[in-house]
Amino acid sequence: MQKFEQLSPSDFFFRNRSIAGFTDERAIYQSVRESVENALDSADVAQVLPFIRIKLLPIYPEKNLFNLTVSDNGCGIPASKVPDAFGTVLYGSKYRIRQSRGAFGLGIKMAVLFSQITTNRPIRILTSTGTNVAHDFVLKMDLVNNKPIIMKRNTVPNPKFVHGTLITLTLRGKWTNSMASKLESYLNLSSISNPSATIEYINPEKQLIRYERSTTKISKMPEEGKPHPKGVDIEALKRMAAETKGNKTIFEFLTNHFDHVGETIAKDFLNSNRINPGLVISRMRDNDFEALYVALKNYDKFMAPSSKTLSPIGEMEFERAVKKHFNPQFVKAVSRTPQAYSGNPFIVECCIAYGDVFSSYGKGLQVFRFANKIPLLFDLQGDLFWTIVKKINWQNYRVNPKEDPIALFCHLCSTKISYKTAGKEMLAQIEEIYKEGRRAMFKVANALSSFISQQSKVQYHKKRLGIFERYLPEIARNVSVISVVKKEELLSDMWKVVRGESA
Amino acid sequence: MQKFEQLSPSDFFFRNRSIAGFTDERAIYQSVRESVENALDSADVAQVLPFIRIKLLPIYPEKNLFNLTVSDNGCGIPASKVPDAFGTVLYGSKYRIRQSRGAFGLGIKMAVLFSQITTNRPIRILTSTGTNVAHDFVLKMDLVNNKPIIMKRNTVPNPKFVHGTLITLTLRGKWTNSMASKLESYLNLSSISNPSATIEYINPEKQLIRYERSTTKISKMPEEGKPHPKGVDIEALKRMAAETKGNKTIFEFLTNHFDHVGETIAKDFLNSNRINPGLVISRMRDNDFEALYVALKNYDKFMAPSSKTLSPIGEMEFERAVKKHFNPQFVKAVSRTPQAYSGNPFIVECCIAYGDVFSSYGKGLQVFRFANKIPLLFDLQGDLFWTIVKKINWQNYRVNPKEDPIALFCHLCSTKISYKTAGKEMLAQIEEIYKEGRRAMFKVANALSSFISQQSKVQYHKKRLGIFERYLPEIARNVSVISVVKKEELLSDMWKVVRGESA
Repeated sequence: MQKFEQLSPSDFFFRNRSIAGFTDERAIYQSVRESVENALDSADVAQVLPFIRIKLLPIYPEKNLFNLTVSDNGCGIPASKVPDAFGTVLYGSKYRIRQSRGAFGLGIKMAVLFSQITTNRPIRILTSTGTNVAHDFVLKMDLVNNKPIIMKRNTVPNPKFVHGTLITLTLRGKWTNSMASKLESYLNLSSISNPSATIEYINPEKQLIRYERSTTKISKMPEEGKPHPKGVDIEALKRMAAETKGNKTIFEFLTNHFDHVGETIAKDFLNSNRINPGLVISRMRDNDFEALYVALKNYDKFMAPSSKTLSPIGEMEFERAVKKHFNPQFVKAVSRTPQAYSGNPFIVECCIAYGDVFSSYGKGLQVFRFANKIPLLFDLQGDLFWTIVKKINWQNYRVNPKEDPIALFCHLCSTKISYKTAGKEMLAQIEEIYKEGRRAMFKVANALSSFISQQSKVQYHKKRLGIFERYLPEIARNVSVISVVKKEELLSDMWKVVRGESA
Repeated sequence: MQKFEQLSPSDFFFRNRSIAGFTDERAIYQSVRESVENALDSADVAQVLPFIRIKLLPIYPEKNLFNLTVSDNGCGIPASKVPDAFGTVLYGSKYRIRQSRGAFGLGIKMAVLFSQITTNRPIRILTSTGTNVAHDFVLKMDLVNNKPIIMKRNTVPNPKFVHGTLITLTLRGKWTNSMASKLESYLNLSSISNPSATIEYINPEKQLIRYERSTTKISKMPEEGKPHPKGVDIEALKRMAAETKGNKTIFEFLTNHFDHVGETIAKDFLNSNRINPGLVISRMRDNDFEALYVALKNYDKFMAPSSKTLSPIGEMEFERAVKKHFNPQFVKAVSRTPQAYSGNPFIVECCIAYGDVFSSYGKGLQVFRFANKIPLLFDLQGDLFWTIVKKINWQNYRVNPKEDPIALFCHLCSTKISYKTAGKEMLAQIEEIYKEGRRAMFKVANALSSFISQQSKVQYHKKRLGIFERYLPEIARNVSVISVVKKEELLSDMWKVVRGESA
């Protein structure tokens, strides 16, 4: 006899935490990462220069126990939302058509969950939205019911109207050297993809590491968009229709609720599909929605989705950040124009850099990946960008990918990043993004190629002049003996010839 | 202002279906796969020789619409459970400590969900547990509330007491040649890892393909186990304690509710951790559970977890199945003894085969992976087994992995398979499994190496004899001229020498 049972979402992710990146080895890293990403997102909302402090300190005498504190100067969380924001899986503010780091409503809850199941301790949150009070919560999770358990709750005065959030949690796990360096790479790369952020990190050895901002330009908060007609499925169509109030017609529905659908396009679409523009949405049946869905999929004249929902790093900022953090001999960034896949807008950015500094990261071409400004450090193989890199013939660009000290930074931003896992490490293979990625890489690779060829020209000329310098005086002496020209004059003429001036 | 909202689990997986393997390109493949795995699991429960029929037929005139029907002779589903089993995400019968193909309570619901959002059509289920009636359901899903919608429900007579399940659903998607061949590989490999199953498949070209069973031995149904003391976290401990009725002591708790914890071990564990064996579970506080958890983690004398929860393929069955389906020149399987990681028992099995037939799968060494008898066909790179294969120096085994026609079938079975994604394609890197995998590969590689060396000896001798055959008569003639021995006698003596016989 089979027994059946229902799992709550928190119970599901508790049992399958490796899917969200919370394996035993990686859980501390992942907890820091999720906190930092929340902090950056909330600084975006507040439109401030992000300032984030992280403390990861061992709790003696036990060597596998750590205290993690992360504070930010972001928008803060309204008191009424705090318990669910930290204690309910699949609850969040990020299920919107807009670029943001979080996407699953999982991240920080997974950290809370991991903390709880390995240490049994609650999480503490101190937050203010910039009012005259801050809210202090101590929370646990009820996994069986996917609900927060409020253990303490206090209001404290906030006389300076500071806004932001501070969270503290206890984590149990091994802290290895490899994770320590992964985390520092993560923070270093984060300050490249978030050039306006300053990040301070106090590591378990109690060293303060500071990643300084490379710009004081606050990155634009992406706007919230409407669904694109190419990006909706039948389920989404029906839900949008159900939310439409009053007796709206399909013409009004299309022009009001979709991205970039103007009256001309709406008319042409309805016309060419023989749909009556006066059809009232609330009277549409299941079959009508199916027909509408197929028609939307097959219509080719919709405009591309709006890209105001996106916030790329920007070519200048990208180059400046890489220069500041690595000081390479050469750097070149490209920010492609917005494109779309399945109705989701996206932008690919690539920055290539050349310099001995990269040798410390490994021999040859190093690839650093970012998605919506998040550095992706695990599972390179299997990632979309890696697939592109491997298929490029780098020799064509005078690059020996196995030897040369080159770094390639690849960034994808989109309203919808298709990851292969909820641990957010691998970008799924999507044809449109693949093509854009290739174009971006070609362009920066070309720039690097010119640099290398110029460099080798400079070197060639240096070498050539060196040879002449050694032998010309000798030649001049011999020639002058034969032809009774003054040696000095002859030498000066010869130099002119060598340098390409007329003698 | 941020807006917060709560997602239901079905809504979450609807939005993030790529995590469950349901990308647009792969959705049809994945739907078949999930149905087949459910069918095999239910045949295991019924303890019958599985017989599965799959029909995947296009619905004309639309070229991207397909009808999928999958039937099995398994245990069937009780009528009261049908709606949730197909219409509620994270509802299932497989959240148990026992090897099974399903694990997430996601698979078939994702197929239903995908069908619904792309075609708006319901799923139909006909099932009987072997009583005198069968139940006929037509269902949809309410994604917002994660609940089934029953559209029709009927009881039909079942005079022959047949048991099993038949499901029918409509799918929209591109059916490419590459997916077609992936699916056939999947079914072919399934019949290797499930040697007692016969699978019939009618493909979109209306060809019937039959994968015949290679044994009539029904594979043993794995037993349900108890949690191992090394495998529980604080959350699990507290839940188990809460479910314990009456005033049980910690001694009783340990000996009754854990895998392989006898009285001697329990006493020693409690003694060495200075815990009073008479401590009543219901009086334990949070701190006590934390202390108990740490003590369990640090105690080294627990026995390995029981392996009766596992059902490996078996060496003989593995070899026989590979022989039947590929007819190679050489085959050797190894089934390792059970081991454990974090309290979860597991077994690694490897089967190596050599034969020209494998050239059709690609040049050189081909790796085929299985987890709990499921073939894994995507994302080879990034998988645990692939990591092992790459680190082995195949030249040591007289194998050229880039050229030789060799297939390596690797199977992991466990009560807990750690996948990197809910799409069940990549095995996570776990040290204990890595080591076992290496040992298994070494062993089959050794066997192959002997075979190859024997083969090349045979070839060497053949060649050597061939040369002598050509030249000996000539030599014999010349020698006989010189030494007046009869040419025939001399030749016969010479052959004896060549063959190693005394002349």
